[in-house]
Amino acid sequence: MPIIHVEMHPGRTQEQKRAFVREATKAAVETLACPPESVEIIIAEIAKESWAKAGKLKSDA
Amino acid sequence: MPIIHVEMHPGRTQEQKRAFVREATKAAVETLACPPESVEIIIAEIAKESWAKAGKLKSDA
Amino acid sequence: MPIIHVEMHPGRTQEQKRAFVREATKAAVETLACPPESVEIIIAEIAKESWAKAGKLKSDA
Amino acid sequence: MPIIHVEMHPGRTQEQKRAFVREATKAAVETLACPPESVEIIIAEIAKESWAKAGKLKSDA
Amino acid sequence: MPIIHVEMHPGRTQEQKRAFVREATKAAVETLACPPESVEIIIAEIAKESWAKAGKLKSDA
Amino acid sequence: MPIIHVEMHPGRTQEQKRAFVREATKAAVETLACPPESVEIIIAEIAKESWAKAGKLKSDA
Repeated sequence: MPIIHVEMHPGRTQEQKRAFVREATKAAVETLACPPESVEIIIAEIAKESWAKAGKLKSDA
Repeated sequence: MPIIHVEMHPGRTQEQKRAFVREATKAAVETLACPPESVEIIIAEIAKESWAKAGKLKSDA
Repeated sequence: MPIIHVEMHPGRTQEQKRAFVREATKAAVETLACPPESVEIIIAEIAKESWAKAGKLKSDA
Repeated sequence: MPIIHVEMHPGRTQEQKRAFVREATKAAVETLACPPESVEIIIAEIAKESWAKAGKLKSDA
Repeated sequence: MPIIHVEMHPGRTQEQKRAFVREATKAAVETLACPPESVEIIIAEIAKESWAKAGKLKSDA
Repeated sequence: MPIIHVEMHPGRTQEQKRAFVREATKAAVETLACPPESVEIIIAEIAKESWAKAGKLKSDA
């Protein structure tokens, strides 16, 4: 049942995403007491041209 | 007023999306008693490389 | 697989929500060709004090 | 601390996005009393083929 | 057309939210060249018990 | 930089949430190579009355 959305910059390899979803699911299962099949994770990659902090696009920082 | 976000895998035709937004809007109008113009639907297509279930990317499953 | 998020004002009865998720799921199944068990819908009720249009909170409009 | 997500159609220049995040951050800082560094803004561009109003994709309207 | 979602901690007055939506809408209208009526803003207040940074809930920090 | 949103049913203790954000942040840091301070997690608790699967509210299932 946990649905997890992750926003991060592009640049991770498919292997890193694979490791992330495996470990994050394990974290959910162990701490929230839910079955693995109930954990869904959706990753969105957000370019630095579309993400700002302190009023500045990260591509300009 | 209902704002509806849909996440699904890519692969649907434009005709399928067209039918979906028509029928889902009808469902909202009929059951929630809201005018059609108030219903907005945003569709996000999420690749299997970015969607995991049970700790596994769907592209690996 | 479709995950559907709906934002609307409070005030619908539980019966209306029940009808909405039934009909919206049917719309997804029929138009997107996905099994019913794969459709999840999450409803968020957003008070008029927290929703603005045209620069004005709906509670002030 | 405010995290701000913006959904809009594609078509704005990078200069327009730059101006938007600068001005929207200023609006948050001045009205919500938070430090500029705490404001993050993520922009998602949603094609008219994926955004519907009143049961119709905007690309069909 | 821009739909803007804001997540922040509770504690702002209704007057602060009112000022924020007014100023943020103005920022959108001026920089993105969209009519005011097209700007919707939804504010979600997230308790410190439900928001973590660096692995720690903000209520524990 | 990863921003992580988690949706789950209410019922977890504050201690479980604390453990979850600690372990999920560790998973992000180790697999995505990002500093701990860059990881933010927001938890939303969604009542069974507002979450449906297969066309049925979970509170009715």
